[in-house]
Amino acid sequence: MKLFIPELIRRKRDGEPLDPEEIDGIIQGYTSGDIPDYQMAALAMAVFFSGMNDTELFALTRAMIESGQALDLSGIPGIKVDKHSTGGVGDKISLPLASAVAALGVPVPMISGRGLGHTGGTLDKLESIPGFSVDQSMKQAAALLERHGLFLIGQTGELAPADRKLYALRDVTGTVESIPLIASSIMSKKLAEGIDALVLDVKVGRGAFMKERESARELARTMVSIGRASGKAVRALLTDMSAPLGYAVGNALEVRESIDLMRGEGPRVTTELTLELGAEMLILGERAGSVDEGRELIREALEDGSALSKFQEIVEAEGGEPGVCDDPDRLPTAREQVVIPAVQGGVIAAIDPMRVAMAALEVGAGRRVKEDAVDPATGVVLLVEIGDEVEEGEPVAVLHHNGRGDDAARGWLLGAFEISKAEPKRLPLIIERIS
Amino acid sequence: MKLFIPELIRRKRDGEPLDPEEIDGIIQGYTSGDIPDYQMAALAMAVFFSGMNDTELFALTRAMIESGQALDLSGIPGIKVDKHSTGGVGDKISLPLASAVAALGVPVPMISGRGLGHTGGTLDKLESIPGFSVDQSMKQAAALLERHGLFLIGQTGELAPADRKLYALRDVTGTVESIPLIASSIMSKKLAEGIDALVLDVKVGRGAFMKERESARELARTMVSIGRASGKAVRALLTDMSAPLGYAVGNALEVRESIDLMRGEGPRVTTELTLELGAEMLILGERAGSVDEGRELIREALEDGSALSKFQEIVEAEGGEPGVCDDPDRLPTAREQVVIPAVQGGVIAAIDPMRVAMAALEVGAGRRVKEDAVDPATGVVLLVEIGDEVEEGEPVAVLHHNGRGDDAARGWLLGAFEISKAEPKRLPLIIERIS
Repeated sequence: MKLFIPELIRRKRDGEPLDPEEIDGIIQGYTSGDIPDYQMAALAMAVFFSGMNDTELFALTRAMIESGQALDLSGIPGIKVDKHSTGGVGDKISLPLASAVAALGVPVPMISGRGLGHTGGTLDKLESIPGFSVDQSMKQAAALLERHGLFLIGQTGELAPADRKLYALRDVTGTVESIPLIASSIMSKKLAEGIDALVLDVKVGRGAFMKERESARELARTMVSIGRASGKAVRALLTDMSAPLGYAVGNALEVRESIDLMRGEGPRVTTELTLELGAEMLILGERAGSVDEGRELIREALEDGSALSKFQEIVEAEGGEPGVCDDPDRLPTAREQVVIPAVQGGVIAAIDPMRVAMAALEVGAGRRVKEDAVDPATGVVLLVEIGDEVEEGEPVAVLHHNGRGDDAARGWLLGAFEISKAEPKRLPLIIERIS
Repeated sequence: MKLFIPELIRRKRDGEPLDPEEIDGIIQGYTSGDIPDYQMAALAMAVFFSGMNDTELFALTRAMIESGQALDLSGIPGIKVDKHSTGGVGDKISLPLASAVAALGVPVPMISGRGLGHTGGTLDKLESIPGFSVDQSMKQAAALLERHGLFLIGQTGELAPADRKLYALRDVTGTVESIPLIASSIMSKKLAEGIDALVLDVKVGRGAFMKERESARELARTMVSIGRASGKAVRALLTDMSAPLGYAVGNALEVRESIDLMRGEGPRVTTELTLELGAEMLILGERAGSVDEGRELIREALEDGSALSKFQEIVEAEGGEPGVCDDPDRLPTAREQVVIPAVQGGVIAAIDPMRVAMAALEVGAGRRVKEDAVDPATGVVLLVEIGDEVEEGEPVAVLHHNGRGDDAARGWLLGAFEISKAEPKRLPLIIERIS
């Protein structure tokens, strides 16, 4: 099909929908290099303003999946369920969640990304475990899932290459914040994984990509409808990201908190989120009949050690040092720990996730540009949560650093805690369920 | 100044104005190649949707002028006045107009473009004169103006190169139709010419770029305000482009009509437009005190042969065959002339300028892509104007072709004439004056 791209850009710009064949041709042409970046950038900006209807969205998602080689897991028994989070500060839930669900017999094929924002992504966290290799071929991944009921890997080049190319372009052309483009990007990657069902954790609040509940809800609904159009069961939770999730922010520090969680000793909030998301996954995997039952099963898997044992199994299978599960001190640690004191006495009313994230970024736990390497050992561990009472000078956080960025990080952290005399308003963790 | 371009794109996208220094940095970076096409394309689309305020517009125009070498005509006495038209079908006014105004002693430094739409531009028309060279250096141009009070040349590479680069990008990214981008593009080129004053002919109607009066008015006002901010006197006329302007459409054919016009034998409409635009130029050039006086002076220059004699002088000075002015048969002529008959009897109610333009394009008078060469001899000559009575089968146009595209052109022309029983509604040529 021969397309005249400037005319398609104008049509989208002027609010007219594009046909599925046109979208398919655009994605094929962009993947092959026939359509240059500058036309795709103009089109992405036109989509930002004009949006996309459901037909266009499904066509775009489908075309991105078909730009590469999708993973075929149909030979492996069971309903394969994954989770995707839109990302938040301190979000290490993937590790205990995937382990607990897999331990309960529901296969979890999980392909994750690196950090795009201020802190590391799931892959960066996994790589803080000595030896762990997230680079697995499709064949190896299928073998891991078959043997262990779980894989935790990075996106291979074969998976939705159009999405990868388009995402990199959007990142430098001010076109990231478009719900149709975000939704189709996430869903193309997830659907190409060969899953049967998906739970989405859509974060809302000042530490999240979506600051407002309305836009988060729209994103969630858009992704659910793409999933439905592809014949997959998808459920979404809108969850609070107005404060860091749990205590640790930083790669090895978050693995440590995850291990604590799988020993039944995690912070209240990360444990609760693991139970909620896990319950949804178990329902989709037909392992639980209700949210209550699902929560209970996950709680047991965390408390009886079966989740941790599954995690240890997959760490070893993917080349990692399994001993870290028994002795988290084998994880990399930073040379310096700096205590951050409360600047006044009172009740912790708020903890600004972006300031905590910036502090972690300054000491090397995240990336400023794609090419940056992360320091696995560095980051922040909070010592308090919202509602805790503190005295002036009492430690509220510990900064872990290796002699780089600690002054700037200290500045971010000192201003991260809002301390007041009044009892803070607590937000519910689960804001809304969408299915 | 170090700019983070994705952030500037996002700000413009979200409706926040950019600072003049930022706009300057963007244009400098784009001209030097530091800012890639894909970022500029996204920004242009953001401007399409979010617009630009006056401060941004002036900064953009200024930055594009400063991207190259502006022409310095300050050493040449007189108030130098140019005209710019937004382009229409059969618009050959530049030739008689510049000649008449220059003959009356007002210097006219005129830099024109090639055809961007279906038919040739002023440069293509001039080049249909054997030997005529529109490629003149800045030094040669200044010498022409000093000696003849006139030059008719093409844009040199030194003049507003950023505009040239940006225009080419907009052309392939669906971002042409943005009033701030159109206005700053036109005005940067014109202000870089070293003019003191400018008359704008903004076309409105189905044969024009601006189909609606409201958008044409906005474009005119935007350009007038850019001119004012640069300390230049600018006046704009909104003129009707609902039918081809005059009889001839095609390069040599239009030169021939221009020569007729400078002999006082031109069609009513092209003559009237020359008088109106000329009067405005004479007022700006302080050669006439009123529109009436200006019209009268132009009429005299056309009727007493002084405009034609000035045109002949500049044709010779720029290497062209001056004999064409005495004997237009020395212009290239097409091998074949095909008479187009009226398909029914009645009154000519409308002549579709786009169908006439398409016919001219089919026989080679215009370009489909920038790289096309135009055939100087081909085109269409109308034999009727709106309000004329015709019988079925009576000739209404003659198609001039060289054995290429004539079947398709004939089809366009047969459908170009709307013939009815009722007296047609006549539109005024001058719709509005803006200054």
